[in-house]
Amino acid sequence: MNKALSKKIKQANPNSTFLIIAASEQDANVYWATHFLAPDPIIFIQHKKKKYLILNDLEVDRGRQEAHVDQVLSFTELFNQTPQARGRNKTTLDMVVHFLKKIKSQELWVPESFPIAYAEGLKKRKVSVKIKKDPFFEERLIKTTAEKNAIKKTLKFTSIAIQEAYAVLKASKIKGNKILYRGKPLTSEALRQVINLSLMKNNCIGKHTITAGGKQSVDPHCEGSGPLKAHQPIIMDVFPKSMDTQYFGDMTRTVVKGKASDRFHHQWHTVKKAQETGIKMVKAGVDGYDIHEWINQYFIKNGYPTGTQDGRMQGFFHGTGHGLGLDIHEEPRVSKTKHILKEGHVITIEPGLYYLKSGGVRLEDVVYVTKSGCEVLSRCPKILEIA
Amino acid sequence: MNKALSKKIKQANPNSTFLIIAASEQDANVYWATHFLAPDPIIFIQHKKKKYLILNDLEVDRGRQEAHVDQVLSFTELFNQTPQARGRNKTTLDMVVHFLKKIKSQELWVPESFPIAYAEGLKKRKVSVKIKKDPFFEERLIKTTAEKNAIKKTLKFTSIAIQEAYAVLKASKIKGNKILYRGKPLTSEALRQVINLSLMKNNCIGKHTITAGGKQSVDPHCEGSGPLKAHQPIIMDVFPKSMDTQYFGDMTRTVVKGKASDRFHHQWHTVKKAQETGIKMVKAGVDGYDIHEWINQYFIKNGYPTGTQDGRMQGFFHGTGHGLGLDIHEEPRVSKTKHILKEGHVITIEPGLYYLKSGGVRLEDVVYVTKSGCEVLSRCPKILEIA
Repeated sequence: MNKALSKKIKQANPNSTFLIIAASEQDANVYWATHFLAPDPIIFIQHKKKKYLILNDLEVDRGRQEAHVDQVLSFTELFNQTPQARGRNKTTLDMVVHFLKKIKSQELWVPESFPIAYAEGLKKRKVSVKIKKDPFFEERLIKTTAEKNAIKKTLKFTSIAIQEAYAVLKASKIKGNKILYRGKPLTSEALRQVINLSLMKNNCIGKHTITAGGKQSVDPHCEGSGPLKAHQPIIMDVFPKSMDTQYFGDMTRTVVKGKASDRFHHQWHTVKKAQETGIKMVKAGVDGYDIHEWINQYFIKNGYPTGTQDGRMQGFFHGTGHGLGLDIHEEPRVSKTKHILKEGHVITIEPGLYYLKSGGVRLEDVVYVTKSGCEVLSRCPKILEIA
Repeated sequence: MNKALSKKIKQANPNSTFLIIAASEQDANVYWATHFLAPDPIIFIQHKKKKYLILNDLEVDRGRQEAHVDQVLSFTELFNQTPQARGRNKTTLDMVVHFLKKIKSQELWVPESFPIAYAEGLKKRKVSVKIKKDPFFEERLIKTTAEKNAIKKTLKFTSIAIQEAYAVLKASKIKGNKILYRGKPLTSEALRQVINLSLMKNNCIGKHTITAGGKQSVDPHCEGSGPLKAHQPIIMDVFPKSMDTQYFGDMTRTVVKGKASDRFHHQWHTVKKAQETGIKMVKAGVDGYDIHEWINQYFIKNGYPTGTQDGRMQGFFHGTGHGLGLDIHEEPRVSKTKHILKEGHVITIEPGLYYLKSGGVRLEDVVYVTKSGCEVLSRCPKILEIA
């Protein structure tokens, strides 16, 4: 068992039991605790100093080879040992309750996301659960050196992919307001594929990679579609997951193929300055809220207001950053919610400004919080104009 | 609102309200009901004949353009309208309760997966929830023509990817028991990348693509690693998600580069025959259990027992098939659980036999259940030996 959990259990009742039933493919807590990837729900139980996984016939042998737990139990064997339920068919929950009795569990904690159907099923079997507030494993937020390096590696591949997109833009020609690559109009879809194929070559999955140009760039989550235009912003937000380590990267760059307008030039540099200052403010003990609020004020002072204009949100209307790890979005947030940064947090700093008149700009890097400041984990040139 | 939902509401109380709070990126029900992809939890409410989405500032404009719902509400506006809570800070759940009152919701249904923390939070606010058993939207299992075509398209790309792997194996040379591709030993990782890059060219994500050879093929979920060997089975299980439609494909082929042993030859043909017969048995009204049980018996009769041997599960120890759609595994199951097949179900038929002595074989196709039988949606040659 790792130190983090041992510490947490001491804080709670020493007899506490922790239960998660979820697919580790989707639930980062189960993966973090077991290092075992499964596409369907598996049963994770931690009791006193021991971690258990209950796996079906299909997974049990692989689990015994791969899972970082104290014991992998066979679902089938345990199910067969479970006493018959009275007047109804025996179920998975009967087996879980049987096992909890066997290990003499007294106090059962589940995550906030624990499915209500399981909780009700346990209640019917006279097992009550306590909800452990997120983060279920607090220590998951404090990255080890291995975790920091895993994130850094995914970011390296992210940077390579963005630079392949830069190269395509550089190799493209401008005709009027069109961008032509190898004689054909360059689309958001084609540029996205350049990035995603580059990522895949390094075993990273780029899902919902954003390559949004012009007006589309004003919507921070619009992926982008259709021909990209010269002299207008193109936001590239690339956040792949490594299939080797399961850790995410997350970077954004905004470029213009051709010449940026004076207005956009100023907007881009304002975001760049805000991001640089935001990164300088990062340090263990600092409140993420203060960084976010400083950037908000900086934008207002420089003539960039936020709010609904012409029926659309414009300005800076998302958080400054978020934790990054096995989940693309995890705690802490750097936003309007207070959250003290700690040594070992890995967070993004990604201010942006979006206006229908000039387009959107967002610049995003990932940093590792230290006692004295932070270490920037992402490296990729920031270029406003590509000739 | 689609017919399916309208029908379900009639069956329930006409005043029923349905609530899901989940990221549509992970929760296929929310995506199915809204056609809106979001990476973080969003609030979906269906009341009488209307579907609502409550979206934060970052998503609200995109939601208004993309979501197939009756109304997209701004989280911020609704939150500001929500009365202040007594003695504590106002939360998202206060807003949800405020909205439920506004629409005069009387009976609130949530899915089995509804997070316990939300359910407890609603309870504290005197809103009780009823659990709607899976499938939350029964009609999601019955595929429309558009859905069938989307799955068929992903399967087409799956087949192209597998055939690219075939081509690499064909172009490889055998030296002793080594497989050399372009002069270098061909690894599981390299063959997987051939498949995943091919998929990505067609905007499909191959995650956990299996290219497992030799002993590794005996573990049905082992992805495979290291050099592949000649004259031994190689299982390729490819189950990508299309980023264009969100629908999955799922196909498995098992090949030998070189010459299969007599024993494996017989094992492969036994699985092929079982799969062909299984597919012929598929028809609306048939119980999936009967197909699975027939295959079980067929294997036993032909000298292929199932059970633990030498401390490992061997034989046929997974289900015969599963539903496929927006989720890789959804209902119905073709397994030891009874489940009547209906017209419009899309399911896999994928028997397999796994022995440490001879290796593993699995053959998998996808079929669309009809009144008179089924339509096979996946097309890809089944080859035992590649010279």
